[in-house]
Amino acid sequence: MAVNLVVPEASALRPIAGVRLGITEAHVRKPNRKDLLLVEIAEGASVAGVFTMNQFCAAPVQVCRKHLGHEPAIRAIVVNTGVANAGTGEPGLAAANETCAVAAALLGCRPDQVLPFSTGVIMEPLPVERIEAGLPHCKASLKADNWLDAAHAIMTTDTLPKAVSRQVNIDGRMLTITGISKGAGMIQPNMATMLGFIATDAAVAQDTLQDMVRFAADRSFNVVTIDGDTSTNDSFVLIATGKAGNPVIRGEGTAEYALLAEAVTDVARQLAQAIVRDGEGATKFITIKVDGGETREECLRVGKSIAHSPLVKTAFFASDPNLGRILAAVGNSGLEDLDQAKIDLRLGDVLVAQNGARAASYSEEQGKRVMKEAEILVQVSLGRGVECATVWTCDLSYDYVKINADYRS
Amino acid sequence: MAVNLVVPEASALRPIAGVRLGITEAHVRKPNRKDLLLVEIAEGASVAGVFTMNQFCAAPVQVCRKHLGHEPAIRAIVVNTGVANAGTGEPGLAAANETCAVAAALLGCRPDQVLPFSTGVIMEPLPVERIEAGLPHCKASLKADNWLDAAHAIMTTDTLPKAVSRQVNIDGRMLTITGISKGAGMIQPNMATMLGFIATDAAVAQDTLQDMVRFAADRSFNVVTIDGDTSTNDSFVLIATGKAGNPVIRGEGTAEYALLAEAVTDVARQLAQAIVRDGEGATKFITIKVDGGETREECLRVGKSIAHSPLVKTAFFASDPNLGRILAAVGNSGLEDLDQAKIDLRLGDVLVAQNGARAASYSEEQGKRVMKEAEILVQVSLGRGVECATVWTCDLSYDYVKINADYRS
Repeated sequence: MAVNLVVPEASALRPIAGVRLGITEAHVRKPNRKDLLLVEIAEGASVAGVFTMNQFCAAPVQVCRKHLGHEPAIRAIVVNTGVANAGTGEPGLAAANETCAVAAALLGCRPDQVLPFSTGVIMEPLPVERIEAGLPHCKASLKADNWLDAAHAIMTTDTLPKAVSRQVNIDGRMLTITGISKGAGMIQPNMATMLGFIATDAAVAQDTLQDMVRFAADRSFNVVTIDGDTSTNDSFVLIATGKAGNPVIRGEGTAEYALLAEAVTDVARQLAQAIVRDGEGATKFITIKVDGGETREECLRVGKSIAHSPLVKTAFFASDPNLGRILAAVGNSGLEDLDQAKIDLRLGDVLVAQNGARAASYSEEQGKRVMKEAEILVQVSLGRGVECATVWTCDLSYDYVKINADYRS
Repeated sequence: MAVNLVVPEASALRPIAGVRLGITEAHVRKPNRKDLLLVEIAEGASVAGVFTMNQFCAAPVQVCRKHLGHEPAIRAIVVNTGVANAGTGEPGLAAANETCAVAAALLGCRPDQVLPFSTGVIMEPLPVERIEAGLPHCKASLKADNWLDAAHAIMTTDTLPKAVSRQVNIDGRMLTITGISKGAGMIQPNMATMLGFIATDAAVAQDTLQDMVRFAADRSFNVVTIDGDTSTNDSFVLIATGKAGNPVIRGEGTAEYALLAEAVTDVARQLAQAIVRDGEGATKFITIKVDGGETREECLRVGKSIAHSPLVKTAFFASDPNLGRILAAVGNSGLEDLDQAKIDLRLGDVLVAQNGARAASYSEEQGKRVMKEAEILVQVSLGRGVECATVWTCDLSYDYVKINADYRS
C-alpha cells in the first residue's frame, strides 16, 4: 500500500562508529515479532532530542526529558513497540525508570544515561518484566550493521521499515549519517515524530546538536501529517558520536554546522516522507507548497489546513478534481485578513484558480489528469508576502478507517 | 444511516405568521429534485444572521453580510442547492446579486431586501439563468405550511430533512418557533452552519435579535462537528415576524429575552444535532461534555480536539474501547499547563481514567458495553476550574470516505 517507498538493502545502511544496535522478540504485546531495540552509544557522544507537544505525553517522554537535561552523557536507548506507556500514571513512570535501570546494569552505566521510548496502544500497562527479560538478548545481538533490523523492530502499523543513510564531505573529511523512523497513524508530529533516530559519527557540541535537531525537525517530521493527531509519544533523537575525528562543531554560525545540518535534515526529511508514503491506508503522496505568505508560520498553517481536511484527502483518494475543497481549506486556516481575490492554486503544472476563482484556462480534464498520479504537487500562492513552506501528506482512504477500526483487535 | 433522527410530520411543523415558503425543481445541478427555495417575509419583521468565519466565504455570504447591515428590513430569502457559488470571483458576486434582483422584482421589494444562500460544489459557476427561471414557480407555490418541503429543498448529501417546531408561553402569550437546517459534510460550523433558518412570530428588536442569533449559534451550530471542515457557506438566519403581537422584546437583560432565547436555542440545538445524526456516514451520535475548565473556551477546545480526532472517531465506528486515544486527543488540544494527573474520563456511566491513568475499577468489558450503543456520552474532567461545555459529533466510517470520494461523480 505504501506510495513509492523503497526499502534500502541492509548493506546500503552505513554503520556509525560508536553506535551498536541489538534486537529481540520480547513479546511485549504480540508474539513472534521483533519488538524491542537496544541502542548502545559509545562514551563521548553528544545526544539531543525533541519530543511531542501533546500535554498527555507518555511516561518514557517524561523520563527522556529528565535524562537529556544534564550530564553525564546518554549511553543507551531502549525502544519497545506494542504498548505506548502513555496514560499510565505513576506505574508507567516506574516502568520506564525500571527499563532504564535494567539497561544501565547490562551496559555498565547509570540509569539516567538511558533514554526509554515506547510506541503502541495508549492506556495499557507496560509489561516491564518482558522488557527486562528481553534486554539481555538485545545486548547479546548488538551489532554496528543492524540498522535495518532496528527499523523493523520499531514498526507498529507501518507496512515497511524506514531507514536512510548518507554521507557528507566537510573539510575533506567524510562524515556519515544513518537514521530510522516509524509512523503510520496518529501522525501530526509537533516537535518530532514517533519515532525518529538519527546518528552521525561527526563530533558536535551538545548545545549545537540541540539546535541542529530542532532545525532538522522543523523541516522534516514537523511538516508531515497523516491524520492531524499528534501522538503522546513523538520523539526524535540525534546522536553524534564524534568518532569521525573532525574538529568539534560548535555554534550555529559556522560553515561546518550548515553543511552537517543540511545533511542531517535531508536524512530526517527522507525518513519523515517515508512515514507519509507508508501512512495508514495511503494511496497518494501529496506535496503542498504554500508561498506568498507574510511569515513561514502562516504558510505552514495554510498547508496544514489543506493537509488535514478530510474532504481534500478523500478527493485525492478518489482522484476527483473537486478542487474547490482546497480553496475552502485555505479559507479555513484561520489567517486574519486573507484576501481571497489574491489567491492562486496550481495542481502539478495546471493553473486551477487565479485571483480566488476558477482560472479561465482551467478545464476539468486537466485536473483529472494530475489527480490520477500517485505523487501530486499542490501549490498555493497567498499573494501577501515572500515567505513559503512545504508540507507533505497522504490521502484518506477506506483503508485508513479499516486499519484504525481494527487496530488492537 | 442517520442515527436516531426522526423526521417530523409536515403537520407537526407550525406555520409562522408572516412567513411563506415556495419550492421548485430548478435543475441547478441535477434534474428531478427540489433545489430552489424562496422564503417571503412580511413587512415589519426583524432578521438577523451569523455567517461562516471561513475567509474563503462564498459570494452569497458576502452579499448577505452587505444586505443585513442596514435598512430597509429583509423581505425575502432565496436558497439553492447543487452549486455553492464559492470560489467564483466577481461573476459569482454578480450571480448572487442577480438572484436578489429577480426575487425582488417578483415580490415587489428592493434587491438589498433579499438574502441569497447557496450550497453544493465549490468553484463551479452558478447557473443563475436556471434560478431566474425557477423563482416564478417558487412564488406561485408560496405557502405558510411548507416547512417540510423547504427542508427537503435545501438538502445536499443529507439523507433526511431536518425541521423542528416548538412553542413558548411568554407573559400568557403563546409564541411559535419553527426552523430547518441541512448539513452532512464540511461541518465544523464556525459562527453558524450551512444552513439553518429559524423563524418566530415574536416581536424582537433588530439589535436584540442579532444578540439572540449569536447566543443560539454558540450553543447549537457552533458546537457540532462532523469532519472539522468549516464550510465556505455556513449561514444561520433568525427571523422574527412580530405577528404574535407581543410587546417588542428589546435588550438582553429582560425575562422575555431569556425565555425566547432559550426556546430559540433549543430549536437551533435540535437542528444542529439533527445535522450530526445525519452526518456523512454516521453510525454513532456522540455527546462530549468537558467540565472542570478555567474557561468555557478551553472546554470547547478539548471537546473539539476529541471530536476531530480521526483515531477517536474510527474507534467509535468500530465500537472499540481504545480509549487512550481520547486521552491523547485531550493532550493534543493545545491547552497550556494542562496537568494530566488531574484528568478523569467517563464513558457513559463507566469511570475509565482517573488522575490521568486507567481507573482501578475499569475493565475492558465495561468499555465495550458502552461503545456498542448508538448514542454515547463522553465526559472529561480537567480538574482546573468550574467552567464546562458540550460538543456533539459522530463517528468516522467507511461511508464517510465513500460519500466524499463519490460526491460530484
